[in-house]
Amino acid sequence: MAEAASQELLLAAAFVSDAQYNRNIPFKTSPEAVRLYYLYNHWFMRTATYFFIFLNLSLAVFEEPAVYPLPFLATSSVEVLCLLVFFGRLMHFAKITRRNVFWKDTKNICIMVAILLSLTDLAIYGALRIYNIKSVRWSRIVRPIFLVNFAESRQIRRAFRSIRNTLPEITYVFLLFMFSLLMFSLMALKLFGERNLQTAEGLPYFRDYLEIVFDLYVLVTTANSPDVMMPAFDFSSWYALFFIAFVIVNTYIFMSLFLAVVYNNYKKHLKNEIRTLAYMKRRKMIEAFNLLKEEEGTLSVVREAQWKQLVKLVAPDISSSHRELLLRISDDEQKGFIDKKSFVQLADLLNIQVITLKIRSHPLGQWMPRIYKSAASQFLRSVVRHRGFVWTYDVIILINAIFIALDEESPYISYAEWVFLALYIVEILLKLYTYEPRAFFGKNQFWNWFDTLIIFAALTATILNTTLKSTTKYNSQQILDIVFILRVLRLIRIVDSIQRFRVIMNTLINIVPTMLTFGGLTLVVYCIFAIIGMELFHGKIQFFPANSNAPYAMECGNQALKDSLFARGKYCKNNFNNFASSFIVLMELTVVNQWHDILCFVTAQPAKLYFIAFHIVMVIIIVNIFVSFILEAFFVEYSLEKTSPLKQDTLQDEQLLDNMESADNDLEGEGGTKAQPKGLVFKIASKRYRTVDALLQRMFEAEIPLEDEGPSFEEILNMSPGDLTSERAV
Amino acid sequence: MAEAASQELLLAAAFVSDAQYNRNIPFKTSPEAVRLYYLYNHWFMRTATYFFIFLNLSLAVFEEPAVYPLPFLATSSVEVLCLLVFFGRLMHFAKITRRNVFWKDTKNICIMVAILLSLTDLAIYGALRIYNIKSVRWSRIVRPIFLVNFAESRQIRRAFRSIRNTLPEITYVFLLFMFSLLMFSLMALKLFGERNLQTAEGLPYFRDYLEIVFDLYVLVTTANSPDVMMPAFDFSSWYALFFIAFVIVNTYIFMSLFLAVVYNNYKKHLKNEIRTLAYMKRRKMIEAFNLLKEEEGTLSVVREAQWKQLVKLVAPDISSSHRELLLRISDDEQKGFIDKKSFVQLADLLNIQVITLKIRSHPLGQWMPRIYKSAASQFLRSVVRHRGFVWTYDVIILINAIFIALDEESPYISYAEWVFLALYIVEILLKLYTYEPRAFFGKNQFWNWFDTLIIFAALTATILNTTLKSTTKYNSQQILDIVFILRVLRLIRIVDSIQRFRVIMNTLINIVPTMLTFGGLTLVVYCIFAIIGMELFHGKIQFFPANSNAPYAMECGNQALKDSLFARGKYCKNNFNNFASSFIVLMELTVVNQWHDILCFVTAQPAKLYFIAFHIVMVIIIVNIFVSFILEAFFVEYSLEKTSPLKQDTLQDEQLLDNMESADNDLEGEGGTKAQPKGLVFKIASKRYRTVDALLQRMFEAEIPLEDEGPSFEEILNMSPGDLTSERAV
Repeated sequence: MAEAASQELLLAAAFVSDAQYNRNIPFKTSPEAVRLYYLYNHWFMRTATYFFIFLNLSLAVFEEPAVYPLPFLATSSVEVLCLLVFFGRLMHFAKITRRNVFWKDTKNICIMVAILLSLTDLAIYGALRIYNIKSVRWSRIVRPIFLVNFAESRQIRRAFRSIRNTLPEITYVFLLFMFSLLMFSLMALKLFGERNLQTAEGLPYFRDYLEIVFDLYVLVTTANSPDVMMPAFDFSSWYALFFIAFVIVNTYIFMSLFLAVVYNNYKKHLKNEIRTLAYMKRRKMIEAFNLLKEEEGTLSVVREAQWKQLVKLVAPDISSSHRELLLRISDDEQKGFIDKKSFVQLADLLNIQVITLKIRSHPLGQWMPRIYKSAASQFLRSVVRHRGFVWTYDVIILINAIFIALDEESPYISYAEWVFLALYIVEILLKLYTYEPRAFFGKNQFWNWFDTLIIFAALTATILNTTLKSTTKYNSQQILDIVFILRVLRLIRIVDSIQRFRVIMNTLINIVPTMLTFGGLTLVVYCIFAIIGMELFHGKIQFFPANSNAPYAMECGNQALKDSLFARGKYCKNNFNNFASSFIVLMELTVVNQWHDILCFVTAQPAKLYFIAFHIVMVIIIVNIFVSFILEAFFVEYSLEKTSPLKQDTLQDEQLLDNMESADNDLEGEGGTKAQPKGLVFKIASKRYRTVDALLQRMFEAEIPLEDEGPSFEEILNMSPGDLTSERAV
Repeated sequence: MAEAASQELLLAAAFVSDAQYNRNIPFKTSPEAVRLYYLYNHWFMRTATYFFIFLNLSLAVFEEPAVYPLPFLATSSVEVLCLLVFFGRLMHFAKITRRNVFWKDTKNICIMVAILLSLTDLAIYGALRIYNIKSVRWSRIVRPIFLVNFAESRQIRRAFRSIRNTLPEITYVFLLFMFSLLMFSLMALKLFGERNLQTAEGLPYFRDYLEIVFDLYVLVTTANSPDVMMPAFDFSSWYALFFIAFVIVNTYIFMSLFLAVVYNNYKKHLKNEIRTLAYMKRRKMIEAFNLLKEEEGTLSVVREAQWKQLVKLVAPDISSSHRELLLRISDDEQKGFIDKKSFVQLADLLNIQVITLKIRSHPLGQWMPRIYKSAASQFLRSVVRHRGFVWTYDVIILINAIFIALDEESPYISYAEWVFLALYIVEILLKLYTYEPRAFFGKNQFWNWFDTLIIFAALTATILNTTLKSTTKYNSQQILDIVFILRVLRLIRIVDSIQRFRVIMNTLINIVPTMLTFGGLTLVVYCIFAIIGMELFHGKIQFFPANSNAPYAMECGNQALKDSLFARGKYCKNNFNNFASSFIVLMELTVVNQWHDILCFVTAQPAKLYFIAFHIVMVIIIVNIFVSFILEAFFVEYSLEKTSPLKQDTLQDEQLLDNMESADNDLEGEGGTKAQPKGLVFKIASKRYRTVDALLQRMFEAEIPLEDEGPSFEEILNMSPGDLTSERAV
């Protein structure tokens, strides 16, 4: 940090960087608080926080029931350490934010309560342990709270808020759905209850009302179709109509209604949140402007020198030419100052990824120009650049695929593997020979990176495996598996050769950041349910290897499971005996199929509630939110391609690009007084916005007129989600 | 038809009625053609056409393999009759439409080809039958073409067009999905192929590449999760990651992508189609106007007398006061003529359902005013009107629900059933005593109708059952079943008492017409696949009743199925032995679960293609279209409640209502020269548009300015779906 910078400048820089990263920290404006603010947002502090959050979550792997058991003292001291770190982080946050805001913010309260609960529980559990009394570590389910509530996990928190806002509407639909389920169950009881029918397993069929409700609930998820229908259907074909009506009403109509409600609310909520964000950003940039403004005639402006110092503070790692470029865009008439309108855009300008790349000649061309520029070399390079080169390698990939599918045992085929590896390496080397290496490994050359990494990993693993084989005469299982996977992954490259596929792939790659949010959401839900599941169902069944002599090895060590579908399907490894197993069982429950069989080992009625609760939370709410994510992301991508209002937005960007390029030309024209040497070209890395969020935010910002400074901080922070809609609904 | 009507008037009436019902028949304007046009659209002709279409489709029930066998001579002569009717209908259509249009229309060509194919096949099959040579009735799969291609099934045809337009995009995503599937299968082969693992049934696990592809395809539908994972998972927990990655990529991401593509295209296509319809309607109304217009000063107008005759022709069954009302709206300044702008609205005005109801005093009040108006009677009526009355009956319904769930055997409970029936009947009688009966059974009083019908059906069935029981000492199975269902259906009424539920229920009821289209679509696909399925798989397995002594009764008469999951699950009745069974099997395949078990009886590899094809068509395309239907319908309903542009539309309607009521007041004020007696009140039945289509059409019509007469007929008919988008995209 430049020590010469004045307090105003430091504060303004804090505002700008807060706006740039959408952090929305309502920090105090005292000099000390601003310094602490910078420390708080230092990448090291943020990474450390995440590290401790995940360390805390992963403790479940080492605590009883453990995948890798560690003594209680070790896990508990790590937990105390984590809690201390969280507390420190929270105190740090308290130092930089205004007190009234800090205490109003639910997420801070949540963290404090969670820390207190964890410590209390730890103390009680530890004390009881000394007297050898077994108790339950119930506070473990609050651990995901840290993942959600630290300021960094904005996206996950937003998804949770979105869920919370959807709940009332979902509840009504759910109640109606339950009503329909209960009615159908009642009908089923009257129709089939006294027929003395039996299921395929010889159990009584549809006798008990609660059993029927559960069976039909399972039918909604389609997991026991058509088994649940068969006894009635065998009795009379007409009874199939009952089940058809049931499936249409409950599976198709109600489940679609759930999706519709979730999607509709998700969209509405997303818009509101992003509108608030856009206001916050605007407000922060105006605060920064007000700090630095000077009078220039009738205008309030920021002088060039001030502006440059500000940018240096906010983004110390951008090159001076890049900074010069930003200046030219902001002060396009070269008046020596920046007006409010241009200043407000600074946060966005900083976010545009600009790749400064020199049109460098190939290093080989510099080291040995003679050979590199010879006719043979030029011919080689034109061959590599030719489309035929790509096609040739596509054909090689296809042949490779066939070889992979063939039997590994034949020695010719394992030789062929070496040939293919060599061919791929030659391809990469040829490309490096033809294209400038730094351009080839540019930040956005996803496929080049992918290729190179995959192939060198495969090379390493294959060599390692061969060495092991020749020394120990034994294939290493793990390495072989990795080699297999890498070999197949290599084939994916062929997708990139076909234009239409590349478009879809790019859309999918663009969706990845959004999907990570969903991953976080899933992690939270899984953690909570896994910990509860372990407490409830731990040790009910055991897994024995195939040739075990243990009693009831086939029945998972549980005599009651004899002849059950669970044992017959060899599901013994689907248990809640440790954290990893629990995750896999929950994954299977998310996929839904056979979930009634998986819970077969639970004999107690109330335990079914655990599974139904998981189904409602995970499948009805979270999977639907995920589908909404993907639908919305796809529609945004799609509308980017087609409709007009967004096109304007891209156009605007292209204009920016033009500006940049012309600015760059200016620099060249000026002969490079301040500018970089010739051949410098700026390129905007992605004209498309990488995430749905960023795109939507752009759209809303375009909607806010410049004069509209938006509500004040206090107003924005006090707003309920509904406020913005009602005031400024589209 | 009024014989005095001139040719122009008849023709104009034809245009208006075509516009009113969105028929879009490009009829000739010759007098004879117009007469034939009226005949063509007569309700009897339309109903007859549908009757023969469904008769033709239902022939599959009586033909080999038959549910109810009929001799070939009978079914074939019915089929010939149907084909003759279809041909006649087509010829009738040819008479009224312009020749060039007729021959350009694919649907006419389709019908002709289908008739020809059916006749040829019938002749060949009949001839071969005489010589006792078995052949295949392959033309049966063209039968659904009649359902799709007759002019009446506009909605189904539109859905098919929508599917056709979606195909290219779906295909790309599908290819990418298949690529991903093949890659994962290759990985699975390399990872698990040489481990010598076994499935729970002891079969080899993941050895053959094609088997793996199929197993993983089934996993995409989640039908064999987690079974397909267990052997690898038992071998090493890490392998679970492979399946988790597979499910995330293929089940969650790709399946959502399919929904996104289908939904996006559905929406786009729907808008285009409806825009075309709106143009057609406008154009027709203008044609009608041009036929009748006379000069009034500088304006072209239609005189009141002409207009009235026109309305009489178009809608002969509306009352004269209703007609008067329409006139007052169209000619709101009472100038004696109707200008173009008002005239064009006529088609919509005719579509608004107007209930003419007199504020009639209760008939009992007229017959025995003394008693009806006595204090006791008035008190009774105020009790019935009180909210407490509704709540009381809600409580009674709940108690009834408990009684239904209790055991039927106890005599007290069957007495209770009589008590409840009596209570419900008393409720209806009390309501009829309080409210005017004709208002109570108004067209839009869905719940009143529902209640009354259910209760009187239940009463009839219960009495019938009791009579049967006392005479034959034996419960009739069918009647008892119906009684049970009716009793439970009675309980649904409770939903109507809670405001929020009523809103959701109304949305669902509004969606019903749209869902019927989907039903038609499903019917077509099911018919085709059922007929193919019967040809391929007929007789492979048999169903034997539980206590049968037939050999291999437990193995569905097929020795090869011994110990298979199919036999163990008692799936024998899931077969393709007749049309009804095939439908049920296809329904089970649509629900997806256990479909790999259901096709277990098919040993030949290529037959799996049949099931995969069905899955792609039904689940990936049609179910997604259905979900899109529901999503869109729900969003439209939702936006109706909230957003502004649609609110204007409803407002406009309310204005119409005001107009109507003020017009009505005028009538009263005038002392009823032409008007009906006092106490006449008009009510617009539904302020909401009943279907999504109607609503969207309204929106687009509002967009077309009056001056824009739109493209000519020829242009509209020649337009490709893309034309309108590119020209006039929003």
